[in-house]
Amino acid sequence: MLSIHYANCLSERVGEHGLEGASVAPGSPSALDCARMTASLESTRGRGWERWRLLPFDPMRAEHVGAIRPLVQRLRPACENLIVLGIGGSALGNIALQASLNSTVHNLLPAAERPGPRMFVVDNVDPANLGAVMSLVKKSDPTFQKTVFNVVSKSGETAETAAQFMLVRQTLIEALGREKHAQRIVAITDPAKGTMRKICDDAGYATLPVPDGVGGRFSVLSPVGLFSAAMCGVDIDGLLDGAAEMDARCREPEMAKNPAATLATLLVRLGREKGKTAHVMMPYSNQLYLLADWFRQLWAESLGKRVDQQGKEVFAGFTPIKALGTTDQHSQVQLYREGPNDKAFVLVDVQDFGAADVPIPRGLGVDAVAYLEGSTFGRLLNAEKRATEYALVESRRPNLTITFPKIDARHVGQFIALWEVATSYAGLMLNIDAYDQPAVETGKVATFGLMGRKGYEEWRQKVDRALAETGYRV
Amino acid sequence: MLSIHYANCLSERVGEHGLEGASVAPGSPSALDCARMTASLESTRGRGWERWRLLPFDPMRAEHVGAIRPLVQRLRPACENLIVLGIGGSALGNIALQASLNSTVHNLLPAAERPGPRMFVVDNVDPANLGAVMSLVKKSDPTFQKTVFNVVSKSGETAETAAQFMLVRQTLIEALGREKHAQRIVAITDPAKGTMRKICDDAGYATLPVPDGVGGRFSVLSPVGLFSAAMCGVDIDGLLDGAAEMDARCREPEMAKNPAATLATLLVRLGREKGKTAHVMMPYSNQLYLLADWFRQLWAESLGKRVDQQGKEVFAGFTPIKALGTTDQHSQVQLYREGPNDKAFVLVDVQDFGAADVPIPRGLGVDAVAYLEGSTFGRLLNAEKRATEYALVESRRPNLTITFPKIDARHVGQFIALWEVATSYAGLMLNIDAYDQPAVETGKVATFGLMGRKGYEEWRQKVDRALAETGYRV
Repeated sequence: MLSIHYANCLSERVGEHGLEGASVAPGSPSALDCARMTASLESTRGRGWERWRLLPFDPMRAEHVGAIRPLVQRLRPACENLIVLGIGGSALGNIALQASLNSTVHNLLPAAERPGPRMFVVDNVDPANLGAVMSLVKKSDPTFQKTVFNVVSKSGETAETAAQFMLVRQTLIEALGREKHAQRIVAITDPAKGTMRKICDDAGYATLPVPDGVGGRFSVLSPVGLFSAAMCGVDIDGLLDGAAEMDARCREPEMAKNPAATLATLLVRLGREKGKTAHVMMPYSNQLYLLADWFRQLWAESLGKRVDQQGKEVFAGFTPIKALGTTDQHSQVQLYREGPNDKAFVLVDVQDFGAADVPIPRGLGVDAVAYLEGSTFGRLLNAEKRATEYALVESRRPNLTITFPKIDARHVGQFIALWEVATSYAGLMLNIDAYDQPAVETGKVATFGLMGRKGYEEWRQKVDRALAETGYRV
Repeated sequence: MLSIHYANCLSERVGEHGLEGASVAPGSPSALDCARMTASLESTRGRGWERWRLLPFDPMRAEHVGAIRPLVQRLRPACENLIVLGIGGSALGNIALQASLNSTVHNLLPAAERPGPRMFVVDNVDPANLGAVMSLVKKSDPTFQKTVFNVVSKSGETAETAAQFMLVRQTLIEALGREKHAQRIVAITDPAKGTMRKICDDAGYATLPVPDGVGGRFSVLSPVGLFSAAMCGVDIDGLLDGAAEMDARCREPEMAKNPAATLATLLVRLGREKGKTAHVMMPYSNQLYLLADWFRQLWAESLGKRVDQQGKEVFAGFTPIKALGTTDQHSQVQLYREGPNDKAFVLVDVQDFGAADVPIPRGLGVDAVAYLEGSTFGRLLNAEKRATEYALVESRRPNLTITFPKIDARHVGQFIALWEVATSYAGLMLNIDAYDQPAVETGKVATFGLMGRKGYEEWRQKVDRALAETGYRV
C-alpha cells in the first residue's frame, strides 16, 4: 500500500513554515473537519459529478471491463500502432498509465518485446507533430494495416479532437474505402447523445462509453483511460483493485487513517496559512513523472476557481508544478531552497525497483567516485531523494513523501484514487465547485469566432479589438 | 528575427495587474536603468562567468566548430545511436536543440529518413529508464556496433553522470575490450584538469572542451550542446548565426530596441511590483516545448538566490513553469484565468509552419464542426493561441508573446541568446549573482554521506537525525 510521510510539513521540522503537529492531531479542528467532510462525501458519493467514485466497483466496473475485454481481444493481436486522439482529460490519463506501467522506450522495442502496440497520444493540433506521427503510419508503411485509432471525445465538438478526427477519417477512407475504414476506429464517447455519438452510429464505429457524471479529469479509470491501457498490456484489473483499496481507506472519518484527507488538509492549509501556493510534485522515477502531468490537470482545473459556492470572489487554487528527481536537482532545487518560500513539495519515491535495478560496476579505480562502485542506481536514486529531502528541511521548505512499495498497476491505481479523493476534500475545504471549468469557455468561443464559425462573428471582432496592434513590440 | 509583443503586460490592457506604459517608455526610470545595465554588461562581457557571451563569435566559435566538424564527419556515417550522458546544464540544452529542430518522432524514423542517429539523453539515474535505454543498444543488437556514447561532465564527479559513465565504460570494455572501447566514447569535459580529464587522457577518448568561464546552464552553444546537435544533423552554424544576431540587438542601450532588456524589465517588474512571481512559458508548438525546460533551469537556478550581492537575505527569484499550447488550455488555463493572479505568461508562437502545415479535410458534413473544414491545423493552433491571449487579457492576466517567423536553427539560436542575455539583465535588476548555485551543495554532500563516501560520514548522521522516523505517516 502507498504510504505518506509528512513530518517535514510540521513546525518541528521546518519552523514557522510548517503546521503545528497539534493542529492535525486527533481532536484538532482539522481532524473534526475531516470527519465532517468525510460524512459529506459519503452523502454525495456516486451522485452528480461524483459518480467517478464508483468506477472501481461493480456494476460500473464489470460493465466497463466487460465491454473493453472483447474489443481488446479482437483488436490487439493485429495491432501494431494505437493512436489516441484526445486532449486534456481525454489524454492525460492515457499518457500517465502508459508511461508509468510500460517501458520508457516502449515504442522503440521490437513487437515481440512489447506487451502491446506502439502507442501515440496526439493531444495537440501542432501540424508538425501531427504530421510526424501520421507519417509513421502512412499507407505505404507495412504497419498501416495494423493501426487502430482511438478517438476520445464525449461531445465530439472539442475543436482539437474534432480536427484530428476529420484528418484520420479522411486518411482511412482514402486508403480503405468508406465501408472498411470503420474497422480502424474505436470511439470513446457519450453512450446516448451528441455529435460524436451520431457520427459513430452512422459510420458503425466500435464505441465505449464516457459514463454520465464522470468529468474528463476524473475519467482515467473509465474506458477513457482503460481501453488504451488494456490494448498496451496494462493490468486494468490491478489498477481498479488498487483504486478500490485506496477508496476504502479514504472513507475513514479519522484523519490519521485517511490518506486523501491528510493530503488535502496538509496542502490546503500550507497554501492558505503558510503561503505555499505552489505545489510541486517531484517523482524520483521517470515512469512516474507523467503521473505528475495528470495531477497537474486534476489539481489546477478542479481548485482554480474565481468564486466560491456562494458566488463570492475568492480566486482560489494552487499552482501544480511537475519536477523530476534527480534531474531537477540540477535545475530547480537551487530555486526551491533559496527562492521565495512559497511552495510545498510532494516527493514520490519507489522503495524497490526489484529486478529493474542496475548495479554500478567496479573497476574504474578513480578515488573521487569510488564510493559509487558496487552500489546500484536504485540506491543512488533513493539516496539523492533523501539528501534532497534533508536539504529542503534545512531550508525550512515543507515537504512530504508518497512511497510506492514498487511500481505496478495496483499501486498506480492507489495513487490515482488517492489524488482524486484528495481533490474532493480540497474542494470542500476551499468551498468551491471542484467539478466545473467555467473559464475554459471564453477561449472556445473566441476560437470559434477566429475560425469563422457561424454565429460567433462578434467574437472575432471582440478579439481583434482587444488585441489590436500597438507599438509595444521589439 | 524573433519579435516580442508586450502590450498585454500593460495597465491599459490588464488594469492594476500591468505596468504603466509610461513606466517603460523612453526616458522612464526603467529605460534609464536599461542604459546603465547595458553599459555594465559591456564592461563584464566575455569576462569571468560571462564568457558565454563570446561563444557565437570567433575565435571561440571557430575553435569549437573546427573541433566538432571533423569528429562528426568521422563518427556520424556509422552512427545509429547517440547516447548522451549528462544532467542539468549538460543535458537540457542537448534535449532542447534536438526536440526543437528535429522531428518529434525522430527516434522512430527509419535511418534513411533521419538527418542523423537516434538520440537519447539519459539525464537521470532511474534504473528502470537507464536499463531500458541500455537494452536498446545491447551487444546482441545489430546497432550496438553503431553506438556512440557522449559523456558530458566538466569535473567528472557529478554522481549521476559518473555512475552512468561507469556502467557504459564497463559495458563497452566487456564487449569490445579495453583498447577498442575508447573509440565509442566522446567526452565533453574540462580541457586541462579534473577527474574526467584524467580518465580521458588515460583511456584515449576523443574530447571536446567545456570552455572556461561557461557555466552549465549557459553552455548550450558550446560543444556541450553543439556536438550532439551536429551529430543529429542540426545546422550549428545557423544556431550560432542566430545567437550572434540576437546578441547584437541585446547590446543596444535603448530599451525599446533591446529585446533582452525589455523581457527582463517586464518580467522582473511584474514579479516585484505586481506579485507575478510565477513565470509561465507556454509555446504553441510541440517542438518548442522543451526549450521551456531549458529556460526553466536558466531562470530558476540563475535568479533563485537567498542573498543579494551585499549578502542581505532577499530570497529572490521567480518560479518558471512550462506549459504547452493548446494542450494545457485543457488542463491549466482554468487556473491561469481564475486562480490567484500571481503569474506572468510568455506565450510563444510560430508564424508560419510552411510545408509542415496540414489541411483539415472537408467531407465530414457535420454542422457543429463544419467551420474547421478546409482550414489547416496551423491556423487552428494559432487561432487557439490568440483566443487564449484574449481570454488571459479578459481575466487581467499579464502576458506577452514571442513570435518565431518559422522554426529553424537561426531562430532557435536567437531564442537562446535572448533568454541568456535577459537572465543577465534580470540578475542585475535583482542585484544577485546569476552565475552561482550554492544551494545545490548540501544535497551533493548529503548524498556522499548516504552513499558511504569516505570523509562524509557525519552527513549520514546529520540526515538520519534530521529525518528520523515519526508517527506522522498514513
